[in-house]
Amino acid sequence: MSGGMEAIDNMSSFKVVNHPVRRVDAIAKVTGRAKFTDDLTFDRMLYGRVLRAKYPHAKILELDTRKAEEAPGVVCVITYADVPGAQAIGPVRPDMPVFVSTKTMYLGDAVAMVVAETPEMAEQALDLIRVEYEELPAIYDVEEAASEGALELHEDYPRNIVNHYPLRKGNVEEGFKASDIILERTYTTQLIEHAYIEPEAAIAVPGVAGDIMTIYGSIQNPFTARRHVASVLGVSLNKVRVVQCTMGGSFGGKDDVVSAICARAAVAALKTGRPVKIVHTREESIIESYKRHPYVMKYKVGATRDGKIVAMEVYILADAGPYSSMTPFVTWRSVVQATGPYEIPNVKTDVYGIFTNNTYTGAMRGFGSPQIIFAQESLMDELAEGLGMDPLELRLLNGFRQGSVTASGQVLEGHTVSLEEVIRKATDAIGYSEKWKTYAKNRPAKGKVRGVGFATSYRGVSLGAEGVDAVATLLSVQPDGSVYLHSGLAENGQGLKTVFSQIAAEELGCKLEDIVFMDTDTSVIPDSGATVASRSTTMGGGSVRNAAKKVKEVLFEVASKLLNVSPDEIEAADGKMYVKDEPGRSVDFKDVAKAGYSEGKLMAALGWYHAPKVTWDEETGQGKAYFTYVYGCQAVEVEVDCDTGKVKVLKVAAAHDVGRAINPATLKGQIYGGVAMGMGYGLLEEVELQKGITKTRNFDEYIIATSMDVPEVIPIIVENPDSHGPYGAKAVAEPTCELLAPAIANAVYNACGKRIRDLPLDLERVLLGRSLRAARGKRGSEQS
Amino acid sequence: MSGGMEAIDNMSSFKVVNHPVRRVDAIAKVTGRAKFTDDLTFDRMLYGRVLRAKYPHAKILELDTRKAEEAPGVVCVITYADVPGAQAIGPVRPDMPVFVSTKTMYLGDAVAMVVAETPEMAEQALDLIRVEYEELPAIYDVEEAASEGALELHEDYPRNIVNHYPLRKGNVEEGFKASDIILERTYTTQLIEHAYIEPEAAIAVPGVAGDIMTIYGSIQNPFTARRHVASVLGVSLNKVRVVQCTMGGSFGGKDDVVSAICARAAVAALKTGRPVKIVHTREESIIESYKRHPYVMKYKVGATRDGKIVAMEVYILADAGPYSSMTPFVTWRSVVQATGPYEIPNVKTDVYGIFTNNTYTGAMRGFGSPQIIFAQESLMDELAEGLGMDPLELRLLNGFRQGSVTASGQVLEGHTVSLEEVIRKATDAIGYSEKWKTYAKNRPAKGKVRGVGFATSYRGVSLGAEGVDAVATLLSVQPDGSVYLHSGLAENGQGLKTVFSQIAAEELGCKLEDIVFMDTDTSVIPDSGATVASRSTTMGGGSVRNAAKKVKEVLFEVASKLLNVSPDEIEAADGKMYVKDEPGRSVDFKDVAKAGYSEGKLMAALGWYHAPKVTWDEETGQGKAYFTYVYGCQAVEVEVDCDTGKVKVLKVAAAHDVGRAINPATLKGQIYGGVAMGMGYGLLEEVELQKGITKTRNFDEYIIATSMDVPEVIPIIVENPDSHGPYGAKAVAEPTCELLAPAIANAVYNACGKRIRDLPLDLERVLLGRSLRAARGKRGSEQS
Repeated sequence: MSGGMEAIDNMSSFKVVNHPVRRVDAIAKVTGRAKFTDDLTFDRMLYGRVLRAKYPHAKILELDTRKAEEAPGVVCVITYADVPGAQAIGPVRPDMPVFVSTKTMYLGDAVAMVVAETPEMAEQALDLIRVEYEELPAIYDVEEAASEGALELHEDYPRNIVNHYPLRKGNVEEGFKASDIILERTYTTQLIEHAYIEPEAAIAVPGVAGDIMTIYGSIQNPFTARRHVASVLGVSLNKVRVVQCTMGGSFGGKDDVVSAICARAAVAALKTGRPVKIVHTREESIIESYKRHPYVMKYKVGATRDGKIVAMEVYILADAGPYSSMTPFVTWRSVVQATGPYEIPNVKTDVYGIFTNNTYTGAMRGFGSPQIIFAQESLMDELAEGLGMDPLELRLLNGFRQGSVTASGQVLEGHTVSLEEVIRKATDAIGYSEKWKTYAKNRPAKGKVRGVGFATSYRGVSLGAEGVDAVATLLSVQPDGSVYLHSGLAENGQGLKTVFSQIAAEELGCKLEDIVFMDTDTSVIPDSGATVASRSTTMGGGSVRNAAKKVKEVLFEVASKLLNVSPDEIEAADGKMYVKDEPGRSVDFKDVAKAGYSEGKLMAALGWYHAPKVTWDEETGQGKAYFTYVYGCQAVEVEVDCDTGKVKVLKVAAAHDVGRAINPATLKGQIYGGVAMGMGYGLLEEVELQKGITKTRNFDEYIIATSMDVPEVIPIIVENPDSHGPYGAKAVAEPTCELLAPAIANAVYNACGKRIRDLPLDLERVLLGRSLRAARGKRGSEQS
Repeated sequence: MSGGMEAIDNMSSFKVVNHPVRRVDAIAKVTGRAKFTDDLTFDRMLYGRVLRAKYPHAKILELDTRKAEEAPGVVCVITYADVPGAQAIGPVRPDMPVFVSTKTMYLGDAVAMVVAETPEMAEQALDLIRVEYEELPAIYDVEEAASEGALELHEDYPRNIVNHYPLRKGNVEEGFKASDIILERTYTTQLIEHAYIEPEAAIAVPGVAGDIMTIYGSIQNPFTARRHVASVLGVSLNKVRVVQCTMGGSFGGKDDVVSAICARAAVAALKTGRPVKIVHTREESIIESYKRHPYVMKYKVGATRDGKIVAMEVYILADAGPYSSMTPFVTWRSVVQATGPYEIPNVKTDVYGIFTNNTYTGAMRGFGSPQIIFAQESLMDELAEGLGMDPLELRLLNGFRQGSVTASGQVLEGHTVSLEEVIRKATDAIGYSEKWKTYAKNRPAKGKVRGVGFATSYRGVSLGAEGVDAVATLLSVQPDGSVYLHSGLAENGQGLKTVFSQIAAEELGCKLEDIVFMDTDTSVIPDSGATVASRSTTMGGGSVRNAAKKVKEVLFEVASKLLNVSPDEIEAADGKMYVKDEPGRSVDFKDVAKAGYSEGKLMAALGWYHAPKVTWDEETGQGKAYFTYVYGCQAVEVEVDCDTGKVKVLKVAAAHDVGRAINPATLKGQIYGGVAMGMGYGLLEEVELQKGITKTRNFDEYIIATSMDVPEVIPIIVENPDSHGPYGAKAVAEPTCELLAPAIANAVYNACGKRIRDLPLDLERVLLGRSLRAARGKRGSEQS
């Protein structure tokens, strides 16, 4: 513990939070009772199946759906001509057509959709749709796309630049002049898939309540889906109701692609007057859905010989594919965090999103940070090597501490800057320092060798200066003391229902099992933005606590009459309200609720949590980007088979400062999951495109880490209570998956002296000890 | 206008309220898009059909369902043994079994329910259930049931008394001593049916969200249904979610009977794990559903020769049937209002609810007042006759005025006592005074003769001292300025959605069409009690206005920045927010919402309206029974065919002081509907029971007034704004149906000198000029 805000809450008094309670949805999930979208059926429901582009970039000369319309069981074929409102959607710019009209931009584009009585009938009729194409010249290489004179994929976007974020601090030229050592390195990361277990799914049900179109789906962000469906139908927001179903994973993935699917279902439901379900196959999912951005990252760093970093220059190209999607937001986080958790007086960063005809890219866990952390943390080890320093020393020397100033000029205050703490805890846990020296000295060229490495990061919590940042809760105590909890944020599998229920139970003093957390319904709860950016616990949890405080005030008033004391003498816990100094004098929570109901008290409240003010100067990249930060470090020990290039991860220590662990058990689950994802990113995963054609279309070719691959993980929960989140909680989710890839790359170097600057570290790269960037298309030149 | 509270609001400034806008649900209803319960189907849904009692009162010796279980399409047969929680339900006392176990108490009792793949399969299997009965002695006459030594239907209820309400004011014995004239009369009213167009219907869907049982149905009071279903399932309230469907009428009728149906569906859904629908046929509806209480009312009145009423004694027996249902509440309203809107210094009233084996009785429009008003207002004309006075003069002489004291000792203040105003307006509209004299003078014994009559009442608004009286609203402005409105009260066809939407639009200044009123959902909105007692506009409307005020405050703050003035200089109307003194300087409501969203403002609020305190002394019947009252008068001209006994209603003038007409058009609709119902009560309707066996089982025998029967109606809206309800609104619904029957009886007397003291005034009674109480069983003796 490094000081902080413990005064806010007395940890020892927690009854529900800070305890590893079982997930509230555990039983429903393990018994199969949880209803996923495909489990829902509606009377007279139809099924939609989409015909996709044949070529990534082509003109559509003719589209003839007549034969398909006459096929058995087919009710209609939907095309762009059926869309009553906006033709295209997008979280930042509406540039992604729900159905393409005149040309295709990538292989996942939807050309038409057959709507039929069964999915099989719809599938069969797809072949009967005749499309005449004229192939167009295309761009698949991000550097080529960003170069002067490149073919422009969209009008008004010269050099295919979706967006450009500059950041200027100090003077890098002078900084490099003052440097004793300068390194220039290019790092690249690959296109990866969210790989959620459940592919995209949505059902549109017309006119259930008046003229409202109700959407049920595997939807990470119900309010985003609502906005898109309303826009495509050309109706106001209150005419589209989105109800989230149980989700089989999302990881940022079930956002705009699912909005498009919801919109297609809604257009078809409107046309047919019947419910329409669309469920993607895995192949469709991989072909259509957006991915994590591949980055090309050119870093230049200058330091004095004693290890102080003086200047850093960063130039990043992010491959957006053909649509804006979340690229402007993803790349913004990159520009903020590109130079890592280090105090650097002179920084120049430029991050560009670039259009290509590859599969489009958008939100994915980490959101612009896994890429830059891979580069940044590889670079730190390379710099340490150049300086002849221990990588740990170099980081501690330059790392953020209380009051440090970030690249964007933000002073780190109001929270505990625990970088050193997480670094020490993670590295100590695997015996890094000693092993690092030992392994570096002994690098046989054959057989199995071991190495250790680590990576660290700071990460802004919630949306930062990205957009509107507020969350609502509706908490309602029923006359029998049972409780409904509605949140504007959504359970995507991360454990939000459990954490929010814990906060409500803690604050109200009721029992956890008395709370029912309702699935997110956009007709009930105010728009709370998206369940992203590791913001749920801080923002959503904050609003739960605010709502519970309001309700508790009413209940205390009622209890004070029953107990014959003043309300401020009362406390609540474990389903009881009792006199503080006389805990034996108590009344059941349920009896208080009953009495409150009888007295006509309003025992419900809307809670609201609005993020503290943040700022950003678009021209200079200066500002208070986020209101608080989390710090994490993962250290790893690997075994490299020099004969095959196979990297085996032996042990990972993951130290994350979460402010306060609301649920230590699910928090550890987040760490295990994040480590597995980070390992996949580092070693296994890559969506291969050849001239825009997806080659890896299922999990036989797209390899993710399975439970058999996951190494021993030592989760280290660091708690430095924050002044913003509930009970001092900050966040955990994304940091857990953004650190392992660079830690592995550093460990591989430690093991065998091979520096791999391109992800993933697959057999060929490790065996040959060099990057094979050409293998993934032509995304830059090779490096030694 | 008689003064009042106009200062509260400037009428001329209303933009949406006080205007006859079209019903917000009109289009959905007239185009058939509105979804009634039977329009909903769910995947794998089953159908339940109930086997009812063969005898009103019988022991069940054996119940064998095995053959039925083996019938084609039958999934199971449900009996009392399948009920996991409470076996019986009831709004006041849980004495009505969901399925009877050992004996039947009336013909509508459910013995078992077949659950099958189709309604037809379920129906066919009913015959295969074998029940062995032993008939028991039964009681069908309420006076017999209430007499000493009567067979007792329930243990611990001597003389079958469900409840007894006494009221004592002054000293009636001395009052009668001081009287110059004393009349004693007995009046009776009949058993009538709610006669809603849509029979009862409910669907239970198991486990849609986690382990929640969701109920969709034609449910007047979703929270009541929830409480009953939760109790029958033995789960907490938050595990049962009730969603109200569009309703085809209720009139108080779709309360406990529908709760029982919901509970049966839920028990079957739990057992089968599949959705279960139950839709009653008309015959089932008439046999099972509760009715309006038949009353036997013995009145004794004493007055001085100048017409001042000195004393009144009232003894009432209400036939409850075998279950308590709403009898304790219905009869409470009777005891409060039994002596009418007259200042009477000495009052003694005793109202009893009495168990019998007739069809049980409960909530129905009027709720204990149509009966006593029939007696009271007939009696007033009889007293006037005895005194040789004009009935109008007698009423004006004794009628309530500002500051009068009611029978329960309540001083009438805080609202405008407009009794004289409504009496004068209604009677003037048909030229009562002159016609009354003319017709009384000319009474041929043959052919068609005319008469006029009227009746007046005061009526307590909302629940009064009956129970918890508070209502919630959730109002939420979306980022595009469209609005969701959730209410804890429910649209039963009365126009609540329209009136509440008008109040929200008026207060927010948005357009009416931008509001979507969501169907009542018990998982969303706090328990607001029942949509009964003509409380919706005052209580629910009040909570809508409170919610809107809160939201408006936030919007004004946002608008003040856009308009660069302080929030208190802003007004809102017609979808704009503008500077008060400079209406041209304005901003669109939608732009304010958009800006508010961008600024992270919470643009939603819970509104709550808690009724002012009321009191009641159970022993003396003294107290402030209701926080405000409405006043109404209906005057009628009839034509009596002396040769056939046929009474034709020619014209009705209905004057009702509603405080403020939120929607004059739907208010008139309420008056037209109430008049039609009142006419049916006065002339046509009666459920005939012979020894507990329902004889009138469909609309071929149970005659209601159709549009062809409805006379010319002159609706007279009287507005004396009240200090409680929104914009001064009070209520209208029930008073419109409680006045016409006595007005007709008085007009018949005026026409032909025949005083009919028993409802309805059917051909025989009018022709013979006397009561035929024996014809409806043996419910008292005949009178001349």
